[in-house]
Amino acid sequence: MTVRTHTKTRAKGEAAFDEPAEEIDIGPLSRMIGYALRRAQIAVFEDFIASLAEVNLRPAQFSVLLVLDRAPGSTQSAVATALGIKRANFVAMLDELESRGLAERKLSVNDKRSNAIFLTVHGRKTLARARALALQHETRQIARLGDDGLDTLLRLLGRLSAR
Amino acid sequence: MTVRTHTKTRAKGEAAFDEPAEEIDIGPLSRMIGYALRRAQIAVFEDFIASLAEVNLRPAQFSVLLVLDRAPGSTQSAVATALGIKRANFVAMLDELESRGLAERKLSVNDKRSNAIFLTVHGRKTLARARALALQHETRQIARLGDDGLDTLLRLLGRLSAR
Repeated sequence: MTVRTHTKTRAKGEAAFDEPAEEIDIGPLSRMIGYALRRAQIAVFEDFIASLAEVNLRPAQFSVLLVLDRAPGSTQSAVATALGIKRANFVAMLDELESRGLAERKLSVNDKRSNAIFLTVHGRKTLARARALALQHETRQIARLGDDGLDTLLRLLGRLSAR
Repeated sequence: MTVRTHTKTRAKGEAAFDEPAEEIDIGPLSRMIGYALRRAQIAVFEDFIASLAEVNLRPAQFSVLLVLDRAPGSTQSAVATALGIKRANFVAMLDELESRGLAERKLSVNDKRSNAIFLTVHGRKTLARARALALQHETRQIARLGDDGLDTLLRLLGRLSAR
């Protein structure tokens, strides 16, 4: 992977100093798993965010709404754990979803120490639209991967995630 | 992917309220490419950070030192662009590397408006040790992927990253 960084537009006869290379070749870094994962994840997330611009949901917010739709009344810690989101980050995210009227905390009947989280009617409607947009995004990514690419990718990613 | 969230320890005869499910099954989310990428990336980064604890370098910091070693004297924008790091984040990262004595900015002879960045002697020594530790990390990840797993994974990730 290379990138153009410097254009040679030196006037004729100008001294030839040691110039920075025109391109930085990142070399072996491009074959490091963590680096390649991060670049792909950023590219896919950028497409996701652009695809869901209409509903203004980032990937993590979308995943929280999906989980609340499947498991209404879950506690904060249950949702955060299931999605691998750090507690502090999750509280801030939930505050935002609540201020936007997409989700609400209610006192849990089972555990007085923790709130149960639910989607609002507006949250469910927004999620329905978000799902349709996310499907378009996902279809594009799958097409990039080619035949059998999705299953192979998910299998390999699963091996890296398992702890 | 499931996670235990609630233990049923109801006393005999206690009313059977609607309880939250014992586990949250995240359902179709686990097959979404962005989600699977992010979980794998976090897992790999956690292993990387633990592996490089001795030199206290995060993945992005390591990648910057690697690039500066390959292309000494590069400008901030060249390095940030090559690595896909946002400008504001990169400036903060470079400030930290400089305060730790690992890298230094010098006035560029070619472009008076931008600094050239170099590793210090301490930076080069630290990078040498970091490389050895990163290799151990990488070897573990490759072993997880199994035969031909690395080449296949990098090929698929490349298809997602290409824009």
